[in-house]
Amino acid sequence: MAPILTVDVTFGDCDPAGIVFYPNIFRWMDAAFQKFLRPIGGHRAVEEEFGSIGLGLADAQAQFRSTIREGDLLDVFLSVEKWSGRSVTLRYEGRVGERLAFESREVRCLFIRTESGIVAGDIGALRSKLEEAS
Amino acid sequence: MAPILTVDVTFGDCDPAGIVFYPNIFRWMDAAFQKFLRPIGGHRAVEEEFGSIGLGLADAQAQFRSTIREGDLLDVFLSVEKWSGRSVTLRYEGRVGERLAFESREVRCLFIRTESGIVAGDIGALRSKLEEAS
Amino acid sequence: MAPILTVDVTFGDCDPAGIVFYPNIFRWMDAAFQKFLRPIGGHRAVEEEFGSIGLGLADAQAQFRSTIREGDLLDVFLSVEKWSGRSVTLRYEGRVGERLAFESREVRCLFIRTESGIVAGDIGALRSKLEEAS
Amino acid sequence: MAPILTVDVTFGDCDPAGIVFYPNIFRWMDAAFQKFLRPIGGHRAVEEEFGSIGLGLADAQAQFRSTIREGDLLDVFLSVEKWSGRSVTLRYEGRVGERLAFESREVRCLFIRTESGIVAGDIGALRSKLEEAS
Repeated sequence: MAPILTVDVTFGDCDPAGIVFYPNIFRWMDAAFQKFLRPIGGHRAVEEEFGSIGLGLADAQAQFRSTIREGDLLDVFLSVEKWSGRSVTLRYEGRVGERLAFESREVRCLFIRTESGIVAGDIGALRSKLEEAS
Repeated sequence: MAPILTVDVTFGDCDPAGIVFYPNIFRWMDAAFQKFLRPIGGHRAVEEEFGSIGLGLADAQAQFRSTIREGDLLDVFLSVEKWSGRSVTLRYEGRVGERLAFESREVRCLFIRTESGIVAGDIGALRSKLEEAS
Repeated sequence: MAPILTVDVTFGDCDPAGIVFYPNIFRWMDAAFQKFLRPIGGHRAVEEEFGSIGLGLADAQAQFRSTIREGDLLDVFLSVEKWSGRSVTLRYEGRVGERLAFESREVRCLFIRTESGIVAGDIGALRSKLEEAS
Repeated sequence: MAPILTVDVTFGDCDPAGIVFYPNIFRWMDAAFQKFLRPIGGHRAVEEEFGSIGLGLADAQAQFRSTIREGDLLDVFLSVEKWSGRSVTLRYEGRVGERLAFESREVRCLFIRTESGIVAGDIGALRSKLEEAS
């Protein structure tokens, strides 16, 4: 499997301990996800076609397996772990060469604005579209 | 319980969907944790006293319960959920007034550089120091 | 003059040199500007009332006078230096106590989408509104 | 001239106006500069060899010529505009294809900690080293 994203880690991604400031890892997961949506037109197409405010997060978690440093080329891999009626679970891996840097997951929903607030809409049509495109 | 941190959410914290870009929530959790260390001298004191490269992350996870928007005053609450020999589990809650915005956890270790790489050191002395200070 | 914003600088704002990563200073200038717009309803009100895509940047510059570190309380001061027909020049100062940390300027325009692209619109009505509100 | 850095702009780099949040442009300039230092070993080598706390900023400025959006491939070009005894002026250009997105400058010094505070040290030896390497 090819990485969906390769990050050339720089000085500004790192903190005073000299390693990547960990919220940046979630930033790169989101960037990977946005690239995953490009074959169907990106999040804007999703918003327009499905009347959604976005494919937002219900849950995110990461295990950090080894430190990432300036100059590392970080490969981010994305796979769909599970579709359910109203959410999709994505699985990520970050590697520097063969070395595992992080393993993580996101649960995302197709959030829709309704009269009673923001709710998670049916995600089936989006699934079909993504599966067709890939 | 008083919040350890209150964030005045602004334009630049939000994404094109008009809500907080989720990695910023982890950024604020880290800021809350760094404030938690201040009574014992902050992370620099931890590094010097314990010969550590930092109180780094082994694991982080968050459940997002409601959207956070520009202009929201986000209160971040921190509590220690569990100490074990080589890690501490922190529990966070983010609230906008009474409304729950997120619930999250971090597992942090006292990482130490050894000849065989970076390992999680004994965290007991740090625990004593933090409990004395609070 | 009171600061429009006070930043409690934390670990994650700093880089491996142990001082604030400089793009964050522009982030805080933007946050200060967004607070400056709040009395008239924030940037969303500006977008709706003036049909603008936002009060965007034409020019930004900063002189860095002394280093900012973790634990510093950074006061950000904002003043309007000059209104012209299609832009406003803002002046910022950042201070840690009495110590000057940075001096900076932004030139902002009311960007409007037209058939021939994005142009800077007349800013006079916005000026009146802001001057009334303050 | 080849770009020193190409940024694949994503959702999370953009703000609620749907365009790049401008402090990110300074973040990318810094990333470009850090890559410029790599042939001589990066900022860590500079710190070790010259006893410096880093090649920090004295001044930064940018003119924003056109908006950058999600999906844009932003090429960042770097050139040295001028060396003086205690500073170097860098010139940047950002382009999306042929379209000019920004023009900017940084003045950087080799900051050194002395008994009387942080001062800008002689930058001549660094200049020689960089010119040899390129």
